[in-house]
Amino acid sequence: MKHGEPFPARVAAAVEDKGGPVVVGLDPRPELLPPDLVAWGRRQSTDPRRAAAAAVAVFNRLIIDAVHDIAVAVKPQLAFFEQLGWPGVQALEETITHARRRGLLVIADGKRHDIGSTAAAYARAYLGPGDLGERKGSGGTGEALFGALESGLEADALTVSPYMGTDSMEPFLDACRHYGKGIFVLVRTSNPSGAELQNLRVQSGAGTLTLAERVAELVMRWNEGMPRADGYGPVGAVVGATEPAEAARLRRQLPGVLFLVPGYGAQGAGAKEAAAAFAPDGRGALVNAARAIQYAWQVERPGEPGTADDYAAAARRAAQRMREELQAALQGEGSR
Amino acid sequence: MKHGEPFPARVAAAVEDKGGPVVVGLDPRPELLPPDLVAWGRRQSTDPRRAAAAAVAVFNRLIIDAVHDIAVAVKPQLAFFEQLGWPGVQALEETITHARRRGLLVIADGKRHDIGSTAAAYARAYLGPGDLGERKGSGGTGEALFGALESGLEADALTVSPYMGTDSMEPFLDACRHYGKGIFVLVRTSNPSGAELQNLRVQSGAGTLTLAERVAELVMRWNEGMPRADGYGPVGAVVGATEPAEAARLRRQLPGVLFLVPGYGAQGAGAKEAAAAFAPDGRGALVNAARAIQYAWQVERPGEPGTADDYAAAARRAAQRMREELQAALQGEGSR
Repeated sequence: MKHGEPFPARVAAAVEDKGGPVVVGLDPRPELLPPDLVAWGRRQSTDPRRAAAAAVAVFNRLIIDAVHDIAVAVKPQLAFFEQLGWPGVQALEETITHARRRGLLVIADGKRHDIGSTAAAYARAYLGPGDLGERKGSGGTGEALFGALESGLEADALTVSPYMGTDSMEPFLDACRHYGKGIFVLVRTSNPSGAELQNLRVQSGAGTLTLAERVAELVMRWNEGMPRADGYGPVGAVVGATEPAEAARLRRQLPGVLFLVPGYGAQGAGAKEAAAAFAPDGRGALVNAARAIQYAWQVERPGEPGTADDYAAAARRAAQRMREELQAALQGEGSR
Repeated sequence: MKHGEPFPARVAAAVEDKGGPVVVGLDPRPELLPPDLVAWGRRQSTDPRRAAAAAVAVFNRLIIDAVHDIAVAVKPQLAFFEQLGWPGVQALEETITHARRRGLLVIADGKRHDIGSTAAAYARAYLGPGDLGERKGSGGTGEALFGALESGLEADALTVSPYMGTDSMEPFLDACRHYGKGIFVLVRTSNPSGAELQNLRVQSGAGTLTLAERVAELVMRWNEGMPRADGYGPVGAVVGATEPAEAARLRRQLPGVLFLVPGYGAQGAGAKEAAAAFAPDGRGALVNAARAIQYAWQVERPGEPGTADDYAAAARRAAQRMREELQAALQGEGSR
């Protein structure tokens, strides 16, 4: 993984290498872990959250090993680590480290945003390096005082939220511009209430468009002048696959913007829905499945306990199937 | 601190007890810590982030001790802990624990949001308890498998972001409804680009209003049927003090909604600006200052190094001054 390279170049190489745009979401839910791992975790600590975090770290490692040659990236969902407190964040660090070691890109799914100086701290946390966004020559940085401050949580990309506007994006854009990182801005989310604000009609110039389309305009602007690869920039968009017509419209509005499409499988969208997020040449999007891969065993054999190995094998089968389904759907699209 | 009590009741009691609505933001910036604490931290660990996290935890404790009888609440800004990885989250746990021990309310400033099942994990992380939002009777919870799962990061309230709509709020609303917690929804933020989306005009019924006003309507709806105290519900709003006329308009639009006003001091707003966020009776808002209190020493004596004790004493003076300035401004308002 070359670090100077723009994020979209790493994505394009990985999609080529893995034969498809599969992203595996890591949403480690302690209540869904295989029983043998739960028992193992409980032997590691009498502190429930440490026990759960230990099991989570091993589970993620198994899933990563099972899909490492199929998936382009893993997408750890930060909330599921944070709910276990600092041991959970330790498990996140182990998970990110293992994924990068196995040659996977890492998309930290945190949907972070804040005013500039605070957003800089989020950027340092998930996009590194430790001095990102600190004003040089303004009386010393934390780096100068403590040595190289790194969170241990450096990912390749971070999901971010647009509600606070351009200045709240600047530190993330700096990471894209100077450190080969990527971001995915929430544009249109796949949850049922996503439409509530995102589909409001807003005035823009003489006409109106939806709030999501207005955010899309900002995404285009934020992507301007950024390092590119094959026409794609590092500022991407989260676009839910549950409304294909809308996804197709946003796709046309956002040339050069990489889409991250959540909701494959468990949230009701399949390959045909996801295909709408791709450019006619079959590029330009990554598709994420979380539950449908991590807990595929529970779908394959409902009610059967299964072992960690069963879960890993089922995850591999599900990831392969997803890659094939996407290939088929994208070839269908290509012949439009 | 009674837990069954609605959040606004705890706020009202604390404002009465402390003589004002002062909230102290904890944004621990390693590069701004007093030199003696930096040196102490560096002796604790050769790992820079552990050294910094150790110093941060002690610094926060000093600030909390210095303002505990003046401030209603502390507001740790999660980004500054996350940038130090898991040791930073450990420092956050120590900070929250110490603040609650000293009788302060804790507002976790994370601006979190996600689809429902992920938002539930955020709610469990910051608003507890560990089984919040898990579907009972659906085949066992993590709680049943690992014992009581608690993040160690339970606060009294959390800041949340509205972009994903009502279903993304449900777990947070559950915490308000059943566990005496509060949330502050981003409505109008104080950063210069805040207006970019938040002041867009959106269609609503026959007329138009700003996106912030539309979010405010949702906040009113989310606050309906909630446990109340003295007319205030647990669903509050973040309203920046940098645009007083706008704050006053939102204040009129949102009876019964507690405002959290950031930006006091460092972000350029003073007591007069903040006063616009209060109801005519001088209630209904909390005002946050972070830098202006934590690093007051650096404003009082620019260029002088100062000790941790100097920082604590200066923070106390700054918090007292802020309380007085707010009292004066609110009395001025009362005589309108």
